[in-house]
Amino acid sequence: MPIRNIAVGRPQDAIHPDALKAALAEFISTLIFVFAGEGSGMAFNKLTNDSSTTPAGLVAAALAHAFGLFVAVSVSANISGGHVNPAVTFGAFIGGNITLLRGILYWIAQLLGSTVACLLLKFSTGGLTTSAFSLSSGVSVWNAFVFEIVMTFSLVYTVYATALDPKKGNLGVIAPIAIGFILGANILAGGAFDGASLNPAVSFGPALVSWSWENHWVYWAGPLVGGGLAGIVYDIFFINQTHEQLPPTGY
Amino acid sequence: MPIRNIAVGRPQDAIHPDALKAALAEFISTLIFVFAGEGSGMAFNKLTNDSSTTPAGLVAAALAHAFGLFVAVSVSANISGGHVNPAVTFGAFIGGNITLLRGILYWIAQLLGSTVACLLLKFSTGGLTTSAFSLSSGVSVWNAFVFEIVMTFSLVYTVYATALDPKKGNLGVIAPIAIGFILGANILAGGAFDGASLNPAVSFGPALVSWSWENHWVYWAGPLVGGGLAGIVYDIFFINQTHEQLPPTGY
Amino acid sequence: MPIRNIAVGRPQDAIHPDALKAALAEFISTLIFVFAGEGSGMAFNKLTNDSSTTPAGLVAAALAHAFGLFVAVSVSANISGGHVNPAVTFGAFIGGNITLLRGILYWIAQLLGSTVACLLLKFSTGGLTTSAFSLSSGVSVWNAFVFEIVMTFSLVYTVYATALDPKKGNLGVIAPIAIGFILGANILAGGAFDGASLNPAVSFGPALVSWSWENHWVYWAGPLVGGGLAGIVYDIFFINQTHEQLPPTGY
Amino acid sequence: MPIRNIAVGRPQDAIHPDALKAALAEFISTLIFVFAGEGSGMAFNKLTNDSSTTPAGLVAAALAHAFGLFVAVSVSANISGGHVNPAVTFGAFIGGNITLLRGILYWIAQLLGSTVACLLLKFSTGGLTTSAFSLSSGVSVWNAFVFEIVMTFSLVYTVYATALDPKKGNLGVIAPIAIGFILGANILAGGAFDGASLNPAVSFGPALVSWSWENHWVYWAGPLVGGGLAGIVYDIFFINQTHEQLPPTGY
Repeated sequence: MPIRNIAVGRPQDAIHPDALKAALAEFISTLIFVFAGEGSGMAFNKLTNDSSTTPAGLVAAALAHAFGLFVAVSVSANISGGHVNPAVTFGAFIGGNITLLRGILYWIAQLLGSTVACLLLKFSTGGLTTSAFSLSSGVSVWNAFVFEIVMTFSLVYTVYATALDPKKGNLGVIAPIAIGFILGANILAGGAFDGASLNPAVSFGPALVSWSWENHWVYWAGPLVGGGLAGIVYDIFFINQTHEQLPPTGY
Repeated sequence: MPIRNIAVGRPQDAIHPDALKAALAEFISTLIFVFAGEGSGMAFNKLTNDSSTTPAGLVAAALAHAFGLFVAVSVSANISGGHVNPAVTFGAFIGGNITLLRGILYWIAQLLGSTVACLLLKFSTGGLTTSAFSLSSGVSVWNAFVFEIVMTFSLVYTVYATALDPKKGNLGVIAPIAIGFILGANILAGGAFDGASLNPAVSFGPALVSWSWENHWVYWAGPLVGGGLAGIVYDIFFINQTHEQLPPTGY
Repeated sequence: MPIRNIAVGRPQDAIHPDALKAALAEFISTLIFVFAGEGSGMAFNKLTNDSSTTPAGLVAAALAHAFGLFVAVSVSANISGGHVNPAVTFGAFIGGNITLLRGILYWIAQLLGSTVACLLLKFSTGGLTTSAFSLSSGVSVWNAFVFEIVMTFSLVYTVYATALDPKKGNLGVIAPIAIGFILGANILAGGAFDGASLNPAVSFGPALVSWSWENHWVYWAGPLVGGGLAGIVYDIFFINQTHEQLPPTGY
Repeated sequence: MPIRNIAVGRPQDAIHPDALKAALAEFISTLIFVFAGEGSGMAFNKLTNDSSTTPAGLVAAALAHAFGLFVAVSVSANISGGHVNPAVTFGAFIGGNITLLRGILYWIAQLLGSTVACLLLKFSTGGLTTSAFSLSSGVSVWNAFVFEIVMTFSLVYTVYATALDPKKGNLGVIAPIAIGFILGANILAGGAFDGASLNPAVSFGPALVSWSWENHWVYWAGPLVGGGLAGIVYDIFFINQTHEQLPPTGY
């Protein structure tokens, strides 16, 4: 049952065996996800000798991230809640679904998972660059900021509606697919403009390993604002209601 | 439980908190869906310098819309029934599953959601055009009219069979995926001929923001005729039966 | 409960309201499926001025058919069992899951649905040809015969394991997705060699409307042999067992 | 209920009717899977006259394998546990979920299924080569070794989390999809570097039929190490716990 108020958490919660187990699950899930996702971008570079993105390349990136996130969320869902994304953890925190201390533990695990994935990719591709996210020509950092806000809003709103909402019902069964596929859909849009991160951990690992930090802040600020906004909106309008709903017309 | 007759609804229904909540859910879902879907078309234009559509571009558009609609339906399913489409709302109204007043509220929310999505896209892409739907050369407006009728019939028939039918059983679990994917399948066909809208809200936002209304009526008339027809056919043949069915052979 | 022996059925069964309702469901499902599937091939021809197939074109065809069949099976699953394919109906008959008379009724409905879909496509595409299935250069009719046998075996075996098997359990929930996606997977292989029909109705409509019957028999013989074989194999080895199974290791 | 310790199994277990039935299911599933997967690679070669892989070709391969494995796992899930992969069987053995003797029976069935699939492909494609897996230029065998370890770790970890874990809950419903799609995601990365096998049976059949064994060992060693590691990690950290977990925050 989600905790209904923002909570700091007791320090001992963060070192509780279950918290460490959850952090390990977040670490492995993020590693799996970033390995396939970032790896698909490196595969495109390999196959095309670093050409600029094509529609087929965008499809490849979208599918790798959609399938990868779907699975990464699935495999940690029962252990850590399947965040795999600091913006999701932040959005869950805003809505009172995770304590501050456990959230920080998740962030560390996610950033570490992404970094290890990039190191493994660097080795196993024979030393290729783990390209960092960047802006296409004609796209300002403010354009990208808004892009990331809207896309991450979509993602975290989906997490709330299909996974965190106590009234989710049968939606819970397909929640990980929905969460993965809304990322895929948005990459097919935003991928051509700012790379479509929606996830600070996904941007952090490649930036660290390739040591390229240009405009890096926008891949934190956008997702965190969008994710936080989604947590607030969903929590206020669709969870915090004290009366019964009319029966919906479907599902 | 669906209302079994066409109903106007009492005026106060439309301003009931749950009606407003449902309208907000439709607004957000349509925004999320159009942002990814229309955005994928703008991404293609960005990557190819406005070349004409290719098979890879069609795949990108189909996946963005399929994944986007699947999620948009999921996240509003329990709140508003997950219409995200004036033609679905119209088809649901024809079959007696929503009142006239609530239906009008949904339409307003859907059109507004699409418009806001296009405004956000215009900004975050650095000012690119939100291309309106149009006919390919060699395709008359009557060809497109029939195309949209058949495709939207498929979509709304799917909504009825998997979501509105009280005998849907386990199909309800995968209903949002089916609804999203039948759109994707049809874009892979109709996308090359008339853009494959199946949804007046999806056509309206880009047309308004780019102010291009050529043949716009066909993207309303086709979906509404097709959606209404699906509501009538499914309701008459598969819902309004008073005797028990033979057990089906599967599922 | 499936009938466990091959049965002719009483003539009055075929005109029972439920049989007619099931036939109508098969007609509409096949129409929806063929409209998107065959339409995707016509879209490729439109976009490329009838170029020969490319990998991107194969992906488009595979997704259109996978998504379309998934939905076509879903929307008729509870009414007719979701066959949408004479080879599936034949395989179900071989395993004793449908009577001969009802099976014939299904065949008529499926062939009719495919034909109407092609007529609608011919009109709405502005008169384009509904290309019939054909063999690639270097592929003999016997190669294609074996190809269709193996592919349709996969399809009907999937129908048995996920939908007709009384012990299917939770698999029933995702059965329509599995059935659609095994078609998609096989199109990505066989599509380059013989078009990958797996379904006599899918081949029949385009052949009739474009009046091109070259090697048409192979698109009946292959699927019927493969589908019948799957029915026999699954029924003998995995359904007709009188003792309890050991608990499986998963799922 | 999984057996919690590594077990040899009694010899008579391997010839128990259910063991043979399970082996038959593994044989058929692997045949279905390899036919579509390897077939998709041969289709690419056919369409492009053996050009080097493109991003669209990688998408085709990823979808054929993702869809094919999803279905292959589904159709054998209730009979054999849906391994379809010697590395999964090995990983299940390491975690105590299958006996040694039954595991050997599965291996034989899987290798045989892959070989028969390749023979059928060779005939039905009119004699094309069943290309064996190989390393791209610039990729050493040690790079590929690590690549296969990480990718197969992802796959077998997914099998554990969604299928073998007794606490999997609703995840079991979508487990076959997750298992298929994590393969697809990894092919979009590793496919450009070492072909992305993740499965010794998938590499064995094409190598045997085309008699090309260069670096073949890496397609056994990598998957077995990765799969075994996943079995150990998941079993130690997420299954062998004697106290109750805190309720997770979602799903």
